[in-house]
Amino acid sequence: MLVNGKQMKSLWRDGTEIKMIDQRILPQRIEIFTARDENEIAYAIKEMVVRGAPAIGVAAAYGIAIAEDKDYAVNLLSKTRPTAHDLFYAITYMKDAIEHGKDALESADEYMNAIIEKCRKIGENGKKLIKNGYKILTHCNAGALATIDYGTALAPIRMAKDKEIFVWVDETRPRLQGLLTSWELYHEGISHAVIADNAAGYFMEKGEVDMVIVGADRIALNYDVANKIGTYEKAVVAKENEIPFYVAAPLNTFDKDIENGNQIKIEERSMEEVTKIYNFKTGVRNPAFDITPAKYITGIITEEGIIKP
Amino acid sequence: MLVNGKQMKSLWRDGTEIKMIDQRILPQRIEIFTARDENEIAYAIKEMVVRGAPAIGVAAAYGIAIAEDKDYAVNLLSKTRPTAHDLFYAITYMKDAIEHGKDALESADEYMNAIIEKCRKIGENGKKLIKNGYKILTHCNAGALATIDYGTALAPIRMAKDKEIFVWVDETRPRLQGLLTSWELYHEGISHAVIADNAAGYFMEKGEVDMVIVGADRIALNYDVANKIGTYEKAVVAKENEIPFYVAAPLNTFDKDIENGNQIKIEERSMEEVTKIYNFKTGVRNPAFDITPAKYITGIITEEGIIKP
Repeated sequence: MLVNGKQMKSLWRDGTEIKMIDQRILPQRIEIFTARDENEIAYAIKEMVVRGAPAIGVAAAYGIAIAEDKDYAVNLLSKTRPTAHDLFYAITYMKDAIEHGKDALESADEYMNAIIEKCRKIGENGKKLIKNGYKILTHCNAGALATIDYGTALAPIRMAKDKEIFVWVDETRPRLQGLLTSWELYHEGISHAVIADNAAGYFMEKGEVDMVIVGADRIALNYDVANKIGTYEKAVVAKENEIPFYVAAPLNTFDKDIENGNQIKIEERSMEEVTKIYNFKTGVRNPAFDITPAKYITGIITEEGIIKP
Repeated sequence: MLVNGKQMKSLWRDGTEIKMIDQRILPQRIEIFTARDENEIAYAIKEMVVRGAPAIGVAAAYGIAIAEDKDYAVNLLSKTRPTAHDLFYAITYMKDAIEHGKDALESADEYMNAIIEKCRKIGENGKKLIKNGYKILTHCNAGALATIDYGTALAPIRMAKDKEIFVWVDETRPRLQGLLTSWELYHEGISHAVIADNAAGYFMEKGEVDMVIVGADRIALNYDVANKIGTYEKAVVAKENEIPFYVAAPLNTFDKDIENGNQIKIEERSMEEVTKIYNFKTGVRNPAFDITPAKYITGIITEEGIIKP
C-alpha cells in the first residue's frame, strides 16, 4: 500500500521483532507497535493494534515463530479473538511447519507472503468486476491494514484506480474502522466519502451505489459469511435494490468445520467500545460481527477466481 | 415524561420566555435553554437545542408568538430546518390564528397542548400493538424530547410499561439521538439497551426483535415516510425478517402537497456532525433523513387510529 507516496506493509518482521502500524492510533497519526514475544502479539491482537482476519493470522504466525514455548503460544493466541478463521488457520499452519521440522521464522514469512500474494490475486480477479464510473460501497476495513498488503475488499479497488471510481466508506461503528479505509484510500489517491452507517441504504436506494465489496472473517461451507457487524444489513438492502454484493476473501477463510452461519460463534465485545464516544453508561449490547446468509451474496472474490454461492 | 421521578415537559412557556431542555447537552446533564425572541428560537431549532418534528413545530409557534415582527419571524423560522413538516404546519397555524385576531401566545399554547394530546392518543392506540414480553426496536428519538411530552414512537412504549417489555435503541449516528431515547427510557424505568446502528439487523435476524416503532418527520400522500437517516435500512431489514414496522406520528405529519417520497427534500447537514467524534477530515457526506417507501410500513400509528398503507 501507498503511505505518503511510498510502498509499505502494515506489519513486518525485523529480526525477531514484529513491527506493525498501530491501528488504534490511525488515522490521526502513524505509530509503530513492536512485539517482542508471544504475549505482546496476543495483546496486539486482543486490543486490536492489529486487526482484520488475514493480518491477525499473520500476527499469530509470528507470535508462534518468536515464542520460546510454542505450546504456550498456541494456547495463548487461540484465545485472543474467536471469529477470524485465519487465526486458527495460521496456528495450524505453524504447528504443522514446526512438526515437520521447518524453521519457524521462515515459515511465518512464507505464511505472510502467501497471504499477500492471495490478496494480490484477489485484486486481479476482482478488478474485472469494476467498471469505469462505478461507485462502490465498502464496510469496515478490509484493506492492506487488515491483510498486510493490498487488502481483500480494497484490493480490487486499489487495482482499479486507473478507472474513474468513487468509494462510499461506511464509518463502521462502534470501532470506526471505516476511517482506516478512508486513510488507505486517501494515501492511494482514490476519491471517496465517509458516511454514517445509517446512510448506506439512502445512497443505495438513490442509485448511487453500483456494487458493494466487503471482506470476511469466516465463511461457512454453505457460503454464509461472518463479517463486521452491519454487513448483514448492507447485504439485505443491496439485494432489495438489486445491487451486486461481493465478498472478497482468500479461500482459507472457508471453515471446513462449519456447515452454515448459525454455527459461527459471534464475539460480543465490551460495552465501553460503544459508549466511549459519549460517556453515558446505560444498557449496551455490542456484537462485533454478524452473519450474511449466502442468498444475499452475488459472489465471493478469491485468489482462484469468483465463486457464485 | 418522568425526569428524576417528576413529571416534566421538554419545552414550556414562562411568561414570554420559552424554556427548553437543551438536547445538545443531554444525556450528560440537564440544562435549560431560554429563548426570549424569534432569533433565539431560530437558533435553537437550527442548532438542535430542540429537535424532533413536533417539538420543532411548537418551538416555531412560540417563536412567532413572542416576535414583535410576525412576518420577519415567519420568514426566519421557515428557513431553519427543511424536512420536518410540523414546522410549516405550525407556521401556517400561527399565521391563520393571527389573521383571525386570536391572541398569539394563547394560540401557541393551544398548538402545544394539541400536540401533547395527539401524542397521548398515539400512545393509547399504539400500546394495543405491544404484547407482554415484546422486544421493540426504535431508531432516533421520537420521545417526549421530540414532542414536548409522551413522544410519538415512545408514547406506546411508555404506556405499555406495565407489561414486560424491552427496547433496543439504535444509537443513531451521526448525532446519537438514541442516547436521548435511552435517557428517557432510563428515567421512565423501562429496560433497554443501546446498540450501534449496525447491530439492529443482527438482533432482527436472531429473532430478538418483535416489532419496530419509529417516528416521522414528513409523510407523503402515498404513505412514504421521511425520517432520520437509517430508518429506511431498518425497514427493509424488518420486512425481510417479517417483523412489523410501525411509524408513529400525528396526522399533521402528512404533507398534502407531497405525492410520494421522491418529492421530499432531504436535508444534508454539515460534515463536522460526522467527523467531530474522530477529528479526521476527509470526504464526508451527511444526509440527515431518508425515505422509507410505504411498502415496508406495517402501519402508521396516529391519534385517530392505525392507518395501514
